[in-house]
Amino acid sequence: MSIHNDAQQIITAALAACLPNEAVRRALSAHTVRDGRVFLVAVGKAAWQMAACAADILGQKLHRGIVITKYGHSKGEIARCRIVEAGHPVPDENSYAGTKLVMEMVEDLERDDEVIFLVSGGGSALFEYPLIEKETMEALTQQLLASGANIVEMNTIRKRLSAVKGGRFAQLCAPAQVFSIVLSDIIGDPLDMIASGPAYPDSSTCAEAEAIAAKYGLKLTAEMEKLLRTETPKTLTNVETIVTGSVRQLCKAAADTCRALGYEPVFLTDHLTCEAREAGAFLSAVARSHDDSPRSLAFIAGGETVVHLTGSGKGGRNQELALAAAEGIAGMDDTVIFSLGSDGTDGPTDAAGGLVDGTSAAALHRIGLTIHEVLQRNDAYHALKAIGGLLITGPTGTNVNDVAVALLRR
Amino acid sequence: MSIHNDAQQIITAALAACLPNEAVRRALSAHTVRDGRVFLVAVGKAAWQMAACAADILGQKLHRGIVITKYGHSKGEIARCRIVEAGHPVPDENSYAGTKLVMEMVEDLERDDEVIFLVSGGGSALFEYPLIEKETMEALTQQLLASGANIVEMNTIRKRLSAVKGGRFAQLCAPAQVFSIVLSDIIGDPLDMIASGPAYPDSSTCAEAEAIAAKYGLKLTAEMEKLLRTETPKTLTNVETIVTGSVRQLCKAAADTCRALGYEPVFLTDHLTCEAREAGAFLSAVARSHDDSPRSLAFIAGGETVVHLTGSGKGGRNQELALAAAEGIAGMDDTVIFSLGSDGTDGPTDAAGGLVDGTSAAALHRIGLTIHEVLQRNDAYHALKAIGGLLITGPTGTNVNDVAVALLRR
Repeated sequence: MSIHNDAQQIITAALAACLPNEAVRRALSAHTVRDGRVFLVAVGKAAWQMAACAADILGQKLHRGIVITKYGHSKGEIARCRIVEAGHPVPDENSYAGTKLVMEMVEDLERDDEVIFLVSGGGSALFEYPLIEKETMEALTQQLLASGANIVEMNTIRKRLSAVKGGRFAQLCAPAQVFSIVLSDIIGDPLDMIASGPAYPDSSTCAEAEAIAAKYGLKLTAEMEKLLRTETPKTLTNVETIVTGSVRQLCKAAADTCRALGYEPVFLTDHLTCEAREAGAFLSAVARSHDDSPRSLAFIAGGETVVHLTGSGKGGRNQELALAAAEGIAGMDDTVIFSLGSDGTDGPTDAAGGLVDGTSAAALHRIGLTIHEVLQRNDAYHALKAIGGLLITGPTGTNVNDVAVALLRR
Repeated sequence: MSIHNDAQQIITAALAACLPNEAVRRALSAHTVRDGRVFLVAVGKAAWQMAACAADILGQKLHRGIVITKYGHSKGEIARCRIVEAGHPVPDENSYAGTKLVMEMVEDLERDDEVIFLVSGGGSALFEYPLIEKETMEALTQQLLASGANIVEMNTIRKRLSAVKGGRFAQLCAPAQVFSIVLSDIIGDPLDMIASGPAYPDSSTCAEAEAIAAKYGLKLTAEMEKLLRTETPKTLTNVETIVTGSVRQLCKAAADTCRALGYEPVFLTDHLTCEAREAGAFLSAVARSHDDSPRSLAFIAGGETVVHLTGSGKGGRNQELALAAAEGIAGMDDTVIFSLGSDGTDGPTDAAGGLVDGTSAAALHRIGLTIHEVLQRNDAYHALKAIGGLLITGPTGTNVNDVAVALLRR
């Protein structure tokens, strides 16, 4: 069926545009490096792919580089680069050792030098060098986890105890320029949150840090208390940042392919954070209301929905979104709704997401399944599998959240 | 503030366009009545307003009319019309007597005659004449309510026991033509459901009715069993139907006013049925993602969301939608999201709905309220009241569901 082929093409093209190497290629091709030495620092789960592409583009211009990625994520040597594999999501000795190597590399740079800094998800754990003893830092992390502090509060404390977080890495690079290319895995691209913002001005303050310490009654050494009172950089004059891979890019790539296939793309949002099944209901209501459109349409919504578990079935947020949407488009011709995670893994399943059309609700009904009941069991995986509605891509090598699309072919 | 004035203008214009008399005026102005006698039948909560307008437009062409509306809903005499006030939501003797008058009026019509049939919400109870004893009918209704049968199942049974429902009223009018003008209060305008479809072909079958009777073990008399086996009309050649007041009209009127005020309207849906707070989250995510738009935009979503009670506060679905949206647009300039019920009554409150802007979340925070907690208590009314976010219109005289709008002035 043609519209299903269209969906497949849109998925393939959107994922390709958000691969780490594509993201780096786009950013570097529009950038002129400085006259001095060019250094490369890549941190995060996609660091190897990003660095390999950058080294390829920079060629002889690259002086030296260091790549810190998760265990098993290196795919081989990269010219002029040292590759370090380290702990994630909890930093380990290799995280600290690799970060120390980076700190040494950038400590005596000159005004004409440049650091190409490639950032992807996971950088918080992989790129870290505490200003206190590792054991003391780990004990504090345990205190914070047990206290009920939220992620913003935890980061406000931890940034101040780190040599590289909260904009401090960019300070270390000065007077050299930092060109930071970010592959974002957080909705809205909060640059001081992604990898804890090593090259981005920190918006949190010492006063906030001390208030958080008091709120949760954290036990701190005198050294830690002093660090909490040491401010992180609030402005950075030597940094240029480009977010080139993000859910917005994912949505844009989907929209471009939709247009090429004859659909008029309607970009709804790249900030979706609501309940997955309700997002599916909303998106299917949008599709239903345009059933009488004379033109082919594609409604595009990116983000990362949430699932509140009410059962013990198997599924993921994208599968729940798609399954919930089946109800609203039931009976519609030439209409498809799909949703997938750009990393190719939706929840604890081997599927990237789900796809439904106007026949899906009836197909489920025929095998005795009620969409509402399946969702209550959180068992979207088995329901979609039974009607051929799973999207399987395998791991994609990128992670820029999710995209959902409602296609109406007219 | 200018954008708040814009919101007020959009609300006023959208409500005005969906008043019953406007709906009738639009439909009748595009219609040519037949040469014979013209009869008027109006049923439902808006029957008086619709009939008054139709009588005014038809003038001398109107032969006779009957209006059946809820107690207290007549506003005075209408030329050539008899007005009956009757029971709603439970039919009473006046419902039956009024309906009997209508049946007698249309029983000997001729081919050139025409019946203008004005339908609004509440028509199921107000326009009813059972084919069995009233007491037997009422006992069956009690059985159905106790059985757990859903509304579609209940209607499938009841249509067959009625002299006017399920298309039978149109059959009584034959060979005269019926011109049916519908003010819809059900999402998607299912014409066989609104007022139980007196002038619309019935999609349910005798086989379905008998299966429902068996499923719930209904106790039926021999007379009732015979009626369940008597088919309702599946085609009607003497009816033309126009849905002129509906949530789509409400959305369209809002869009027209947005355009006149310089906003580019983006119609999202008129089929919204998801959880109110999640719809608010989705709509605010759409607004947030267009914060950088160079043009002023208005995203429009109509329908009727639902609220699952988790607390014992005061509120309504439109107030919950608006309150939930405050989070997503927090800090945005010149951005407003509002949601209101077209009848002017949202939940058990004196408000029609709610309105929030980019400052609302901070305003709530300052008075110690957390949006998430307020929603858990279902207490949107008091939270919105505290920050001046309630929309108060008073009863509007129409009921075509709800509309929510996100305005971005750029």
